[in-house]
Amino acid sequence: MKSHRKELWFEVPRRRGFINITPEVEAALDESGVQEGLCLVNAMHITASVFINDDESGLHQDYERFLEGIAPHEPVSQYKHNLTGEDNGDAHIKRQLMGRDVVVAVTDGRLDFGPWEQIFYGEFDGRRRKRVLVKIIGE
Amino acid sequence: MKSHRKELWFEVPRRRGFINITPEVEAALDESGVQEGLCLVNAMHITASVFINDDESGLHQDYERFLEGIAPHEPVSQYKHNLTGEDNGDAHIKRQLMGRDVVVAVTDGRLDFGPWEQIFYGEFDGRRRKRVLVKIIGE
Amino acid sequence: MKSHRKELWFEVPRRRGFINITPEVEAALDESGVQEGLCLVNAMHITASVFINDDESGLHQDYERFLEGIAPHEPVSQYKHNLTGEDNGDAHIKRQLMGRDVVVAVTDGRLDFGPWEQIFYGEFDGRRRKRVLVKIIGE
Repeated sequence: MKSHRKELWFEVPRRRGFINITPEVEAALDESGVQEGLCLVNAMHITASVFINDDESGLHQDYERFLEGIAPHEPVSQYKHNLTGEDNGDAHIKRQLMGRDVVVAVTDGRLDFGPWEQIFYGEFDGRRRKRVLVKIIGE
Repeated sequence: MKSHRKELWFEVPRRRGFINITPEVEAALDESGVQEGLCLVNAMHITASVFINDDESGLHQDYERFLEGIAPHEPVSQYKHNLTGEDNGDAHIKRQLMGRDVVVAVTDGRLDFGPWEQIFYGEFDGRRRKRVLVKIIGE
Repeated sequence: MKSHRKELWFEVPRRRGFINITPEVEAALDESGVQEGLCLVNAMHITASVFINDDESGLHQDYERFLEGIAPHEPVSQYKHNLTGEDNGDAHIKRQLMGRDVVVAVTDGRLDFGPWEQIFYGEFDGRRRKRVLVKIIGE
């Protein structure tokens, strides 16, 4: 069994944003030499998500509006978590709704995707460097 | 290490619906010959979910009502994604809330389930043929 | 390839609650002898979650308030699932939003975590003994 580990680093310049990280994950898969297996991609931070959906800017605006509607950033005093001095209580909820990790099948050395699947890093408390972990196991 | 890949195809005749796909996943596991490992089941489309819950029609009606309440299909103009000519902006949100994939342990050649766990395909933009991927690795 | 399976049992004394189960998962990993691989942790019950976030009591109160706001327990008559005689229709929705399972990379014999990641059991229909499954595969 082969295994490969890679950290990807991102810094989103605003509080929230989505980054298509599919090319970086594909590069990690190429490095691994794995032909058949599973590829785990997860946020290493608890105010960020990794999820799979469409690379379409209107959709990303819809996600932003939906998440701000359901768990708004302000007023920050509405979240008990922010009594710790943080202002990211909303980000912990948004990340939970969008998910922490995805597992992608590896087949013939490729990410085994449907027609529109792309992997995104979802940032909900940005403006600092944060990490995604890629772990690939297989043969 | 063994690996096995299978696509399952479904066509839900309405816009939304839930299908219990546990028997099809069990059949794929039987074909794989894997006794100990992991089984990934994921929607290959970004307006559909794979999730695990109860096979109870009242619950499925509750999910439908909850999801329509939180991210209604109409008016379709409320979603910027629909400016592309699509009318499935809501489906991309519903799928995100219900999840893209599940990973199930394989033990003694069986899906290692709790008492009521069943695997469902959740369709949010149906009336066409769509796919689920099953990938099993192990020994 | 090695594999290891362990069930963890919990009884939350109230209807809802969160338990940090990271030490129990780490113990299972130690028992497994796996150095490189993947660790699946999933609720075996469909009214409970396993998720990764921060061990901070204010945040857990925020999750409780958010989930009760979006899918309140009462009136129980609002859920068709409760026509079966159950009163946990809300719990099936809450679990879906928080997630059933997490997959954690195993590197050098450790759970490969970011700085604040901790694994939680999320109970939404407690006051009885329920199980979490840990399945580890690798080498």
